[in-house]
Amino acid sequence: MDYDTFFDDAVRALQAEKRYRVFADLERIAGRFPVALWRREGDTREITVWCSNDYLGMGQHPSVIGAMCEAAQRMGAGAGGTRNISGTNHPLVELEAELADLHGKEAALIFTSGYISNEAAISTIAKLLPDCLILSDQLNHASMIHGVRSSGVAKQVWRHNDLGHLEDLLKAAGRERAKLVVFESVYSMDGDVAPIEAIADLADKYNAFTYIDEVHAVGMYGPRGAGICERDGVMDRIDVIEGTLAKGFGVMGGYVTGKAAVVDSVRSYAPGFIFTTALPPGLCAAATASIRHLKQSSVEREAHQRQSARTKAVLKARGLPVMPSETHIVPLLVGNPDLCKQATDILLEKHGIYIQPINYPTVPRGTERLRITPTPFHHDGLIDHLAEALVDVWQTLGLPFSTPQPMADDTVVRPQIFRAAGG
Amino acid sequence: MDYDTFFDDAVRALQAEKRYRVFADLERIAGRFPVALWRREGDTREITVWCSNDYLGMGQHPSVIGAMCEAAQRMGAGAGGTRNISGTNHPLVELEAELADLHGKEAALIFTSGYISNEAAISTIAKLLPDCLILSDQLNHASMIHGVRSSGVAKQVWRHNDLGHLEDLLKAAGRERAKLVVFESVYSMDGDVAPIEAIADLADKYNAFTYIDEVHAVGMYGPRGAGICERDGVMDRIDVIEGTLAKGFGVMGGYVTGKAAVVDSVRSYAPGFIFTTALPPGLCAAATASIRHLKQSSVEREAHQRQSARTKAVLKARGLPVMPSETHIVPLLVGNPDLCKQATDILLEKHGIYIQPINYPTVPRGTERLRITPTPFHHDGLIDHLAEALVDVWQTLGLPFSTPQPMADDTVVRPQIFRAAGG
Ligand SMILES: Cc1ncc(COP(=O)(O)O)c(C=O)c1O
Ligand SMILES: Cc1ncc(COP(=O)(O)O)c(C=O)c1O
Repeated sequence: MDYDTFFDDAVRALQAEKRYRVFADLERIAGRFPVALWRREGDTREITVWCSNDYLGMGQHPSVIGAMCEAAQRMGAGAGGTRNISGTNHPLVELEAELADLHGKEAALIFTSGYISNEAAISTIAKLLPDCLILSDQLNHASMIHGVRSSGVAKQVWRHNDLGHLEDLLKAAGRERAKLVVFESVYSMDGDVAPIEAIADLADKYNAFTYIDEVHAVGMYGPRGAGICERDGVMDRIDVIEGTLAKGFGVMGGYVTGKAAVVDSVRSYAPGFIFTTALPPGLCAAATASIRHLKQSSVEREAHQRQSARTKAVLKARGLPVMPSETHIVPLLVGNPDLCKQATDILLEKHGIYIQPINYPTVPRGTERLRITPTPFHHDGLIDHLAEALVDVWQTLGLPFSTPQPMADDTVVRPQIFRAAGG
Repeated sequence: MDYDTFFDDAVRALQAEKRYRVFADLERIAGRFPVALWRREGDTREITVWCSNDYLGMGQHPSVIGAMCEAAQRMGAGAGGTRNISGTNHPLVELEAELADLHGKEAALIFTSGYISNEAAISTIAKLLPDCLILSDQLNHASMIHGVRSSGVAKQVWRHNDLGHLEDLLKAAGRERAKLVVFESVYSMDGDVAPIEAIADLADKYNAFTYIDEVHAVGMYGPRGAGICERDGVMDRIDVIEGTLAKGFGVMGGYVTGKAAVVDSVRSYAPGFIFTTALPPGLCAAATASIRHLKQSSVEREAHQRQSARTKAVLKARGLPVMPSETHIVPLLVGNPDLCKQATDILLEKHGIYIQPINYPTVPRGTERLRITPTPFHHDGLIDHLAEALVDVWQTLGLPFSTPQPMADDTVVRPQIFRAAGG
């Protein structure tokens, strides 16, 4: 075994397959989102980010940044220990209470990321339940799949959002066997939504335990921003609701909420929770400020929905192949990895628009796409500029247009509401 | 299956076994470390933290907090995306360069925590190498064990720091088979140190790839704070050096450093790196400030060593059973989980001293202990107060004293050096 050659070859293979990724070096500008500085080979340019998951721009909200700095200045930059060994800081305790309240649950537990919250909570719950069978939606996120694998228990995959298939599997397992149903609310690459109430009905009928990932919905849906379960009035029908602090809330960290005993069990048994330094007070305070703001303000959510709808409408009106999406996510079909990469290169180089190409294995081959995420700060002028640029790219690369679809009247009115957002 | 009853019982079982943990709700006070506010049932008290892993107090360093706030104010609270999709922020790029330089390696890669850096890097390297055999030190941290398990490859455990045993296993595997040797530099519960150079010699002899966790050493050892490998002059003998930004550096996050192709492979294949939001610019800038400071200042390291040595000496002089430790960690043997918990309760309630009891499974049964971590800010008066309090606890609980050991002359001189530490 020649290790050096082996790793050199591994990297060269990625390059040959065009799967080698170069990360764009960005410097976002608080107060001017979605504008950022893009650095490359000593050169710095202002560009517009169109693929951020800071969906509401809360990362630049003055009260969020202010809370972060105030807490850091008062309590220090880090937590200084694991949760059990001196790392439980007071802002963290407050944040957990805030999240339990948000989701109408007895308790919440913070992790360092949404990724590790899924990995740790799913694996721990599944391991604890005797002879547990996991039923996992086919399109679940990598972090959930990791949790399923870590658990080592039996699993079956149900076809994406297919209630009939899920019911077959639940029925076959029988009422008595412990069954953990894991799924997402908003699937982030297609923007479709799970039939949560119907899944909860099936879980009741066949006595299953339910776990939902609301990572792409928290902050953004429901009257207080608790997600799709809140919007659909089914928060109390799902046993564990998982979320992130890093997307709609604009900060960093992940969490689960549920009954006190369930959360306590995860707290007591999950290695990914126990053996790691706690979230710093500054991040906790920032997240709490963001959640509190979004609990009582719908301005951001409305502007977000409106600008997303307008983006879809404007692109469709230009004949660009917007894929069907029920949510704020705007996927634009390219269908070829090379062209997808070329499209984003032209957008960035020529038009100053940054959208990361989404290729296999993140999405199935043949469905390579641009995944566009408008925020309340992508105002109408930016949307129009995006449409112009995309039409140019489509023409340059000879990509197929679809039939232009006329815009509804209300999507051309310039929205005023987003101007108040984030301020 | 009755899920509610099941989880209620699970929690009750923990309580019955006295393994149920209640986290102390702390509010550290920047500028006054190791003093913190301790909240309980509406009551708030000032206490002294004696078990923090913010070993050098860098979490309160003005330049660290300043860098965090400056970056947050300028670039926002969060990163806004995964590394590949708009989340690579400029301070993160700078931090990776800083870490590669610190460890004398070609490249570095940041993760959201030291935990996930171990889990992701160990599992990815082991999975990539064909027919890899992992050789893992018996006392490796939970995060490393998690990485070993996630990899799914064959593993053998060598007795802690036992070179003969390691050699037997290496020899048996043969030169040709890919072998990944994973171990720590400083073992955090006993404070002992791995024979790194001898392990590197064996790795050369039998053609193994080496991975070291320097989590409890970075910032604290070596002329520039790169850890024990730097102190021992063997940084270039180890293939991958892993560390945390959350302990000696006082912030949050984890990393690996190594040859560019190795780091690039982890970057390209590790789900725990790819599918999670990047570290926020504020944390990156804070960590960079901390590393830069500790690269050129040894004041903190010297004060740290001196106050740790003095703590050991003072406790030994009072006949308290300090366990042998080669490092800054001061373990004090209790040997019984109940008494260990009682000891820490008395320390906190009566003396305002917070030390978390360390019980099974973190340490073997019968070796339950107080794990004391002096920082440069635990001045001589605090050490003397700690000694008084511990003697009181030992007498109250009837715990055995050992023969008092006279202090060396230099441990009674009041050190001035730490006064400069931490700015
Ligand atoms: C569905 C889903 N769950 C979990 C995560 C992980 O969350 P975090 O970025 O907080 O680690 C992501 C993406 O990052 C995601 O898309
Ligand atoms: C040896 C060791 N490695 C890794 C970690 C994890 O590091 P982090 O706290 O940054 O997740 C810890 C403790 O937290 C540790 O003790």
